[in-house]
Order: sequence, then structure tokens, then C-alpha cells
Amino acid sequence: MSKYNVIGTRVHRVDGPDKVTGKAKYTFDMVLPNMLYGKILRSPHPHAKILSIDTSQAEKLIGVKGIVTGKDTLGKKQGIWRRFPELCDEEMICRSKVRYIGDPVAAVAAVDEDTAAEALDLIEVEYELLPAVFDPLDAIKEDAPQVHEGVELNINVTRHIEWGDVDEAFKQCDLVREDHFRCSSQAHVCMETHDAIASFDHSGKLTVWTSTQAAYYMQVLLADMLGLREGDVRVIKPPTGGGFGSKFELDSAQFCASLLSMKLCQPVKIVFTREEEFTASKRRTPMIYYTKLGAKKDGTLLAKEVRVITEGGAYTSMGATALYLTGFFSSFPYKYPNYRYDGYRAYTNTAPTSAMRGFGAPQAVFVGESQIDMMAEELGIDPVEIRRRNGMTPNYEVPGQANIQSCGLHQCLDKIEEHIKQRGKLPPNRGIGIAAYGFMSGGIFNWFDTPYAFSAAVVRINIDGKVDLFTGACDIGQGSDTTLSMICAEELGVRLDDIRIHAADTGICPPDLGAWGSRETLMNGNAVKMAAADAKRQLLEFAGAKMGANIVYDLDIKDRWVHLVDRPQKGLSYFDVVKEAIRGKDGEAIMGRGHYTPHRKGMISPAYSFGVQAAEVEVDPETGRYKLVNVTTAHESGTVINPVGIEGQLEGAIMMAGGYGFCEDQPMDNGKILNPSIGDYKLIRSLDMPETKILEIDTYEPEGPFGAKEAGEGLTNPTAGAIGNAIYKAVGVRIHDLPITPEKVFRALRAKEQARSSK
Amino acid sequence: MSKYNVIGTRVHRVDGPDKVTGKAKYTFDMVLPNMLYGKILRSPHPHAKILSIDTSQAEKLIGVKGIVTGKDTLGKKQGIWRRFPELCDEEMICRSKVRYIGDPVAAVAAVDEDTAAEALDLIEVEYELLPAVFDPLDAIKEDAPQVHEGVELNINVTRHIEWGDVDEAFKQCDLVREDHFRCSSQAHVCMETHDAIASFDHSGKLTVWTSTQAAYYMQVLLADMLGLREGDVRVIKPPTGGGFGSKFELDSAQFCASLLSMKLCQPVKIVFTREEEFTASKRRTPMIYYTKLGAKKDGTLLAKEVRVITEGGAYTSMGATALYLTGFFSSFPYKYPNYRYDGYRAYTNTAPTSAMRGFGAPQAVFVGESQIDMMAEELGIDPVEIRRRNGMTPNYEVPGQANIQSCGLHQCLDKIEEHIKQRGKLPPNRGIGIAAYGFMSGGIFNWFDTPYAFSAAVVRINIDGKVDLFTGACDIGQGSDTTLSMICAEELGVRLDDIRIHAADTGICPPDLGAWGSRETLMNGNAVKMAAADAKRQLLEFAGAKMGANIVYDLDIKDRWVHLVDRPQKGLSYFDVVKEAIRGKDGEAIMGRGHYTPHRKGMISPAYSFGVQAAEVEVDPETGRYKLVNVTTAHESGTVINPVGIEGQLEGAIMMAGGYGFCEDQPMDNGKILNPSIGDYKLIRSLDMPETKILEIDTYEPEGPFGAKEAGEGLTNPTAGAIGNAIYKAVGVRIHDLPITPEKVFRALRAKEQARSSK
Repeated sequence: MSKYNVIGTRVHRVDGPDKVTGKAKYTFDMVLPNMLYGKILRSPHPHAKILSIDTSQAEKLIGVKGIVTGKDTLGKKQGIWRRFPELCDEEMICRSKVRYIGDPVAAVAAVDEDTAAEALDLIEVEYELLPAVFDPLDAIKEDAPQVHEGVELNINVTRHIEWGDVDEAFKQCDLVREDHFRCSSQAHVCMETHDAIASFDHSGKLTVWTSTQAAYYMQVLLADMLGLREGDVRVIKPPTGGGFGSKFELDSAQFCASLLSMKLCQPVKIVFTREEEFTASKRRTPMIYYTKLGAKKDGTLLAKEVRVITEGGAYTSMGATALYLTGFFSSFPYKYPNYRYDGYRAYTNTAPTSAMRGFGAPQAVFVGESQIDMMAEELGIDPVEIRRRNGMTPNYEVPGQANIQSCGLHQCLDKIEEHIKQRGKLPPNRGIGIAAYGFMSGGIFNWFDTPYAFSAAVVRINIDGKVDLFTGACDIGQGSDTTLSMICAEELGVRLDDIRIHAADTGICPPDLGAWGSRETLMNGNAVKMAAADAKRQLLEFAGAKMGANIVYDLDIKDRWVHLVDRPQKGLSYFDVVKEAIRGKDGEAIMGRGHYTPHRKGMISPAYSFGVQAAEVEVDPETGRYKLVNVTTAHESGTVINPVGIEGQLEGAIMMAGGYGFCEDQPMDNGKILNPSIGDYKLIRSLDMPETKILEIDTYEPEGPFGAKEAGEGLTNPTAGAIGNAIYKAVGVRIHDLPITPEKVFRALRAKEQARSSK
Repeated sequence: MSKYNVIGTRVHRVDGPDKVTGKAKYTFDMVLPNMLYGKILRSPHPHAKILSIDTSQAEKLIGVKGIVTGKDTLGKKQGIWRRFPELCDEEMICRSKVRYIGDPVAAVAAVDEDTAAEALDLIEVEYELLPAVFDPLDAIKEDAPQVHEGVELNINVTRHIEWGDVDEAFKQCDLVREDHFRCSSQAHVCMETHDAIASFDHSGKLTVWTSTQAAYYMQVLLADMLGLREGDVRVIKPPTGGGFGSKFELDSAQFCASLLSMKLCQPVKIVFTREEEFTASKRRTPMIYYTKLGAKKDGTLLAKEVRVITEGGAYTSMGATALYLTGFFSSFPYKYPNYRYDGYRAYTNTAPTSAMRGFGAPQAVFVGESQIDMMAEELGIDPVEIRRRNGMTPNYEVPGQANIQSCGLHQCLDKIEEHIKQRGKLPPNRGIGIAAYGFMSGGIFNWFDTPYAFSAAVVRINIDGKVDLFTGACDIGQGSDTTLSMICAEELGVRLDDIRIHAADTGICPPDLGAWGSRETLMNGNAVKMAAADAKRQLLEFAGAKMGANIVYDLDIKDRWVHLVDRPQKGLSYFDVVKEAIRGKDGEAIMGRGHYTPHRKGMISPAYSFGVQAAEVEVDPETGRYKLVNVTTAHESGTVINPVGIEGQLEGAIMMAGGYGFCEDQPMDNGKILNPSIGDYKLIRSLDMPETKILEIDTYEPEGPFGAKEAGEGLTNPTAGAIGNAIYKAVGVRIHDLPITPEKVFRALRAKEQARSSK
């Protein structure tokens, strides 16, 4: 028998058939009897006092059933950093002040969307405009307008990481570089915008269907903001059209729909328009980087110092974590003996900046990988070689921060070196740039202050052998329902179609932190594996009793066959053992439980994936326009559970990370986002996609289920840096601010030309 | 805080004070009210039919209370290989036939030992003498006398191990050697001879105090042989004066005392005389070796073939296992790509040969390490280098046999190489020989067919924080009570004197296979650690609830302080937590359970220790007399639990293994052992001991408790081989049969001289 029966096989997604046939019902598609439609009135001003709100004209509109404003709320401020009350700074409907263009002011429920939209126009809000601040470097000036009262210099949070003696180490360097970079914002652009249907009933129970990355967070936050018991709030995540970090904080669709439903005792549905999605949901954190790197002549990196200020926008949201992680990942994937990071997050009167796929790391990697290439060139060392000399290795400890177990970085470097060699000598204006990276498999930080295990699962085996798997994991398109079903089937020794998964419904699934920070394969996977093992153990007790073999023999189940490991032909049918075991337990179905919270793995993550990406570009030196020709990624994510899933993640990541490097941006005018539509916001489309290739590296992560770890989010880290390095290799110009648009390349080429001719 | 508080510290043995003050009561010392003394009548013939036994005169002797013969038994044959009834071949009192000089024929209970001894002389046994066979090579001849009826050619068991294509591989070798060796017998010479006190009461319960390595085996075997339920037999092991492999089979002291006590309903004590100990207890298995070794010019070992015939003596006993293990360890500690072993055990009319410290491995290592030195010399390769080139490394699989995880052999070789260099150039007639070895940490084989876990432990924490540890482990002098108490204290986070150990009493301790095959540190250690962890987990539940810390923090206990691992100053007193937890459990003492049975570790052992020993000898070329000058051992046994214990094991092992190599032997005349007394049996005494040095190598065994594995038994493997190689280095003669007596060296030197002068 082969090692695994399910894991590593090419299966279709468990939710695939329903999705490709259109049968899957997203929140967007759902209709409840007697349901109303809500719309949210938002601030047109970046910073203003609300002097008065007059809803009387709107209420008179036929078809309007109810209107809520800040007065209808409990007046609490919320936030996801619940351990730190001062960071819970966001009213879900503003009472007295708005802080960005898009801050919610009121919400209407009506018989249809058009009526609700019309009602919004009839609400009269009197504002007193306040001076506003948009740039983080302006925000921290003494005389800047205060976004939040009492927050000195608008500094929301600061983060410091340090080990070794950085100043002393710089003195011992043969070469020290100081560079500045700017990283832009980026929109998540989920296929499904934020939406929710809330249904409050007369027994005092609230049920919310919503497109979310974390049903449990929504349950807890809604209960808190609405004054309900957690157990009276049930949050259900139907099939979900993407999240990418935008959907694990409480949003105004969820809150306003719930508040309206509580007021009206009728179901209320709110769906963000695409414009709301661009302007009033959160976005990737823009960052201004100062970075100093010191090396010995032979390329050994001795010290690094990084200072970052981020544009926070109006509220804390997940921006505090992005601030920490960009500092942490600025030390990746190299062994810096001396390192110092200082990060500052400034409040501004712009849409809040928060988590987005990569979570601070794409910025760190763009900056770090650009600078290391510059350093390598100055030292006359090959870019692969300098990374090899300093790269992390298995069982490496990032001082005081992280205990890395598996790490295949060096194998990835070898593979990419081989790939570059295979490409041979390139024609003029072509270049290959590389970027190395590492990423986390779920976060250890518990700023949310959950008292529950981070992940938990329950497995129930029924009399016919069918297995019900209950998990709080949120499949938002990344495929966790499939991955977890595969893990369950493998561990239990049954087939994938023996599993029926029940996920992300807080009424029936155990609490779980949801889908962010690349948690689910490792954290939920561990819980599911443990629950399946618990159930299997109970079955094997009965099988062992029946078979009466020497106790030194191991029993296991593979493909529904309960057998002696060393004599696989000697066994019993899984179905027969299930029947006997349930009879033995006086008719009680077999129940297995598992839970996982990382322990003794440092402060950041229980495991890290690694990779190296090579981007090949072809630049038109006349115009600065360039084409992504090929993106090849050597990637290790431990044991691959679902190979088809990884391929999809890789393609998607290159599209998204390529967009971050190449074209995506959110330009603003006085806090107003200028391109809030798919038409104006430039994404990489299918026709723009480069040829992609994945070089899978075989590693085994001891902390992961069957040796698995993160695959997908880390892949968004390298592309911008690799493109920047490729442009430099192709035409010799270095772009320090994202995105690397053709215009910037053109200007840089012209400046270079002028500098040359002026010599 | 340092990593461990108890483990690795220099503590005195928990049983030390009682032993050094003489307070400890061995079975030998015990006296029960109304106790009788027993003696056993033994066969003076190597092979004979019992025609009649007349006990009438003996019964009339004043003071004699009872006599039993074979007729008083159930007529069953017993053996420790219970899964194979044909290998259970030993009557505890012979009914119709005796098979060696010492086979029990009758037993007497009397008011004192002298009376019992006198009675033996009055028992008339009429024998019909049968032709006997003593040498295994004679025994397998067609016309040899049959020791057991129906056993063809007297072949008791055969064993075959094979992997690769041995014949093909030999063809590819540049050099092939074929050699013959003979390994002698050895007596265990325990300080305390075999003894037992049996007390049968009117309720049908039998209690037996006995000097044993495996109380649970004795319970089960006695119940079976006496027709009692296992639960009606309680075996208690008082402090025990050594075992070394001689005391884990049922012996005639235990059986005869029990049978007499059942007959008389009075306690009966039987203590073997030293002569009985030498002649009628079991002994190390003598072996005749043919071994063929093939190598490439560069020293790479390609193939090995081994054929062995062992002198079995009259019964199977543990000789079947020794036969397997000598074949398995003949492949150690090298990576043979092709290997074949065939072993045969022949019944003979001599005292049964069985397990003794090393269990077949000292023979394998003497032979193998002699031959590899011969091979190295012929190839012109340094002895260290040839071992380095072929030595096992971590995570090596012996094909189909063993999965080795930790392995520090190469570090041991480095250390020994350094040691040899430090000794510098030696004077004439001095030489240093080395031998490398590996050994098991407990056996996986379950020929005994226990239905219980191999090891189990229970930990009970009482209201005052005192911990009762219950284990079936047998401390026979090797120090397991101390080691297990240390493991329990460390895991639980208390001090060594918080532990009260209750061991090897089948009435109150969980079943356990006892002390053999270097089981206890790893197997019992795992069970004890698990039981302590189970108890600790229950305490930490209450501590965690009380402290209310963020759930990502780890709690632990160290030195009676329950605390957050990352903030050790934040904590609670162990004593307070115990009180609260017991209150929380409605007054029930905290109970932790643990059990261990190896799984998925191949067929032999869950872990292996490794080492290299260098013996330095000084030979007087005139007489062949030689002196062991220095024995230095580089040894790795994973994490060292009890450093003082390891030092003691090392000293003891060199004394015992040096004796095997140097002087110990059991010459016979027609099946009669000629030197059955401490006076005539030559042991290495304290004044003969060489200087010894241990070079500890740091390894970590993932399967062992805190990373620990075997330490002590493996150390008996290398010395004979190292001595042989040292003699060769000193004076150029190679001795092929053990022991390497001065006489043999003298004869070899003379033969060499003659060969030289005849040239």
C-alpha cells in the first residue's frame, strides 16, 4: 500500500460541483421570506462633526420600513484587538464624528434596494467640516488635525523588535547601504462584495448569514455591539466569494443589517456596492520604509535596521498586526545576527488600512529583496549566492521571536538557480529577478482574547460509516473544506466521499479563529486530524478486541480496511467495525474530538513556509512598458495535501502579487479614492498573466498535519520584489516605490539617459 | 531556569541509604512467622530416565514437613516463549526424565536448612542412564542421543535474517574474508543467589517474595504451573542483588517453595547455594561462529554472511531470543547493503543457556569487531576509518528489521580517535584495540504473549503534594527506582523527595515485562512520564483556570512552582494547586495513568544506543600474561537521566565484559561444570580493574523519555572484541576463541615464533 490514499491525490473540490453548476448559494444569492433590503448612508467628508441627522423625510417614503443612526446603537466602539480596549476605536455607525469618506452615518431598511437607496438621499445630515490629514508623515506633525481625541501625534500603535547589538555590528561591516522605499495600498477586490442577511426573531435570537473569513469573530463582536449573549447570535458562512484579509473584521453590512433586523423583527439583507467595496471596506496598508543593511565583503549579512511608518487610515482594525508582521518579516528569510525594527502607525482621515493577503510581508519582501540585490551587486556577488550564504536553515531560531522547524529555502535556491541557467542567455531588455521569502502558518498572537482553543473539530461516525466533520474553519474559496475533508479521510482511513463537512456555522461548529494568516491547513488540519484519530482509536479498540492479535502489532485503517499494519491482508471491513463499535457503545455514534492551540513555538507562528521566485520581464526601453514573461516559483509548504489546490493558489497569488508590483493602486484626492470601480482599478487580467511554473520542494513540517504547512498566502510576498529586480536586470533602473508602473520605468530610464548625457 | 531540575543531577539512589546501612531486606534476609526451609534434590546425571523415587526414609526424618516430586505437579511443561507451545519444554520438577546435571527431581521442606539438606540424602532415586550429548556440533549429528523426544537432529530453533543479494554482492567485492570464532559461556554470578519465599493461605491465595527481574512473568507462570488464577498469585520483589538476565524465567526456588507451601499451608523459603547458582541456574549462550565479510578496496563493506550454532543446553529458556539477537547484532553498527544470517540452536545435556547482559550481542561484537579489524589491516585502512566509512547514522533503517532514530556513532568514533592520539606512541608490547557497538532499548518482541501494555505506571498525588508512583519496573540493582523517580519528579515539576515509589509488586503495581533487554529507562520511563504528565495536566487545568492567562501562554511546573513558561515569576505554589485540584475533584486524589508499548519501530527495539570502546593492554611476550591498562568508552545513550548511575553501569560493565573477554569460563566434563564456586570461577576483582574513562556523547532519542535510551547493557558488548584487537596490536597474535586467556596468547605467540623460525 502507498503511504497515503487521499492526501496528495488530484481530487476535485468538495464544493466544486455546486459552484461550477451555479447551484451554490452565496449570501448574495439568498432570499428569505419577508426579507427587507438595507442601504448605508456614508460620510462624504474625510473629517467632520455630525451636528444633526434628520430622517423624517426618508421615513415617509413609501416602502421604507426603518432607519437607524448612531443613536440606535449602544454607543460602544469596537475592534478586533479586544485585549487592548484603547485599540477598539471604531463606531459601527458614527454618533458624533466621521473620520473618512465612507464612515457609516445611518442605515435604511426598505422593501427593495432602490427604495432604500432613494431614502438615503432624503436623510439630512448637518456636518461641521474639520481639517483633515491624509499623509502619515503629515499626521505625526505637532500641529496636525487629531483624528482621534487624545492620541498624541496621531500615533495609533508603535512596534519594536530588536536582537543583537545593531550599532556595534554596523561598525564591523565592510559595506552599509541605506535605502528608502514606498509601498502602495491595494484593494482586495473579492468577487463577492461584503454582504449579510440578519434575521432577529421574537425569542431574542439573531441569525446572520454573511460572507466572512471568521464566523466566530462575527458572533462574538456582534453579540458585544448589540448587547446580546454570544449564544443568542448564530453566524453562518454560506459559500463565500473571496476574502483576502478584508472579511475578518466586523463590517457595516453585518452590523447594520443586524441592528435593523432587531428593530423590525424582519430579515434584512445588505450588500455592498462595488464602490462601497472599494471605498468603505479595508485595504492593504501603505508603508514608508527606511532600511539599512550591513554586510561583510564576502556577503555575510551582519546587521539590519528598519524603520517604517504606515498610513493607518481612520481606525486600528488589523493594521496593528500588519505593522508588527512587516517588521518581523523584514528579517526574513535570512539569519541576521543583529536586527532592529521600529514601526509606527499613524491615524489619517482615509479609509482604514488593515490585513491583506501577505499581511505586511509583501511590503517587507519588496523592500528587503530589492535592497539585498543592490547589496549583492555592490559586493559583486551573485544574487542567488548572497541569499544562499545568509538564508535560514531548518531548526533556526529567530532570536526571541520564532522557532523555525522545517525550512527548504536552500533547496528552493538550488532549483531557481537551475531554472535561471536553463533560460540561458536572454535577449536585450530582458531580465530575470529573484526574490526569496518565508511566511507563517497561522498566528500565535491572541489579541482577540479568545478563551477557546484556536481550532477545534468534532468527527462523528454514523452507523453506515458516513462521517460528519464539524469545524469552524472558513472556506472562502481557498479550499479549506476540501483540504480538511482530505485530512479527515486520510487519518480515519476512509474515502473522501465518506466525509460530509459542516463548517463555519457557529450554531453547530466549535469556535475557530477562521481564515487568516494562513491558519487553516495547519491549525484546523491538526484539530481535524486529532478528532479523526480520536474516533479511529475508538474503532480500533473494537477491531483490536475482535482480531486478538499480539499487542505489539499496529492496527490501522486505510481505504475502509481495518488491518494489521505489517500484515495488511489480515483485517476487517471498516463498515463492519463501525457497526460493532456503535453496538458496543450502546448505540452511541462514535464521536472524536480534537483541538489545537500552538504552544512553545515562539510568538509568531507554529511553522513557516519558504520559497524563491524568479520573474522574467521584457521591457520596451522607449516607453517603459514591460511584460511579465514568466514567473517561476520554487516553493515548499511541507507535505502537499491537495496538489490541485496549491496550483490554484499559485496562479491566484501571481495574479494578485503581480498586480501589486505592476499596476494596482488607490490614488486619492483629499481622502477620496479616485478609482473605485473595476473599470478604473487596474487588475492583472487573464490575458495579462505570464507563463507560470511551480517547482515543488519536498519538506516535512513536524508541527503540521501529515507534515503540511502554509501554501498560498506566502506566495503573494515575492512577486513585487522579483519584478523590481528583473526590471533592473533588464534595463538597469531601480524603482523604489510600488507599483512599478511603465510610467515610472520610463521616467527612470529618461533620468538615467539624462544623467549619462550630462556627464 | 535551567532546562531540567532533577534529570542530569547527581543524586544518591532512592534505595541507597537502606542498602548502605544494611537496613534493606532482601528475600535472602526475610523471615516469616512459622516459615519452613526448602531444599531441592537435583539430578547428578546429564541424561537419565527416572525409574522410581522413594521419599519414605526422608519423610521420617524429624523436622521434615513435606516432600514434593514430579507427581505433585500438574505435569505441565513451561517456558517463557508462551506464544509457541512447542518451545515450552521444561518441567519444573522432572517426572520421568532428567536432561542435565542439576535438573530438579524433588524438594523438601523442613524446619531448618540443615534438616532439609539431610533429607535430600535420604531420597532414593532410581535412574536409567541414557547416552548424553554435550557439544552442539555432536548434537546435530544423525545418530546423536535425543535430548527431547521428536526434535529432529536436536535442533531446538533456527533463525534466518536476510536482505539484499548477498551472493551477488560478494562477487563484486575486492576482498572477502571467511573466519571462524568460538564464544564461551559465562555465569551471571549475582551477589544474591536465586531465592524465594512462598506463602499460600487457606483462602487460596499465594504470595511469593523473590529475587526476580520480572515479577509479572513470575505471577503468570506460577499461576499457570500451579493451576491458580493469576489474580490469586501475588509476586513481590524485595531489594534484589543482581539479575543480569538470569532472573526473568521461572526458577525452581520459586516453583518448589510455592508447591511446598500449597501442600503445607505454611511459608517456605528456598535459597540456592552458590553451587546451585553456578550449575542449576541459566548461563550465557556459547556460540560457534562462521562469518564471511566482503569489502571494496576503499573499505566499503558490501556484504556479510553469518552462520551460528549455539549450545542450547537442556531447555529453550531465553536461548531462542539470544539466537535471534546475535544474528541481528552481527549487522551492527554498520550499514550492510547485503546481509544474511542463519542461526541454529542445538539441545545438549548441559545446563540451559539463556539470556545474559548483552543477550547475544557480546558474542556478535567480539566476532564482528575482530573480523573488521582483520579486514581493515588487509586493506591497509585505519580501524577508526573503516568504521567511520560504514557506521550507522541517524534515521537509518536496518532493512526489514529496525528503524534507528538517534545515533551518535560517528561522534563516538571521533572521540575515540582523539583519545588514541592523546595516548601517543606506546611502548613495545602495548596496544590499543577498539570495538564499536550498538544496543537496543527494550525489545519489541512479545513471545510471552502478554495482553497488557509492555509498561504502565500510575501516579497519585495526595493532599500534601506527596506523589505515589506505582510501576511494575524491577530494580535489580541497576537503579531503575531512582531513574523512574527522577523522571516522575521532572515531568511533574516536583523534587525527588516528593516521590514515593512502589515497584514490582503485582498486587498493587500495573503489569510490566520487567528488567531485561535494557527496557526500563525507555519503556517504563515513557509510561512514568506519561502518567506524570496526565496528573500534571489535571493540576494545570485548575491552575490555568485560576490564573486566567491568555490561552496562548504555556503553563508548567518546575521545582514545585506552577507558572507561565514565558513569565516564570507569575505562578502559584504546587502545594496550593494540589489542594485546590483535589477539592475541585470532590476529594479524589489526582491520579495520572500512562502506558507504553512500542509501535511502528520495526521488529526489534524502539531505540538504539551506540558507542566505541578502546582497550589498552600490556602483554608480557614471554608468558602471554597481559594487563588491562585502560578502557575508555565513548558512549551515547541519549539524554542522561542519572549520571551517577551511568558511571556505575560503565564500571560494572567493564568488570563483567572484561571478565568475558579475559578470564571467565565454565569448563565441563561430561556435562558437569568444573568450577562451580567463586573460588574457582575467575572474575575480575577490584584490584584487577583497569583505569576506566567515559566520554559521554550528547544525543537525543525522540522515542525516549526526555530523549533518553539504553545505558549499561550495551556497554558489555565491546570489551572482549577491544581486548582481542588490542592484543593483536600489542604482539601481533589474534585469538579466535573466548576467553582470551594468557595461556592462549602464550600458545599463539609460540606458534607465531615457530612459524617464523621455520621459514
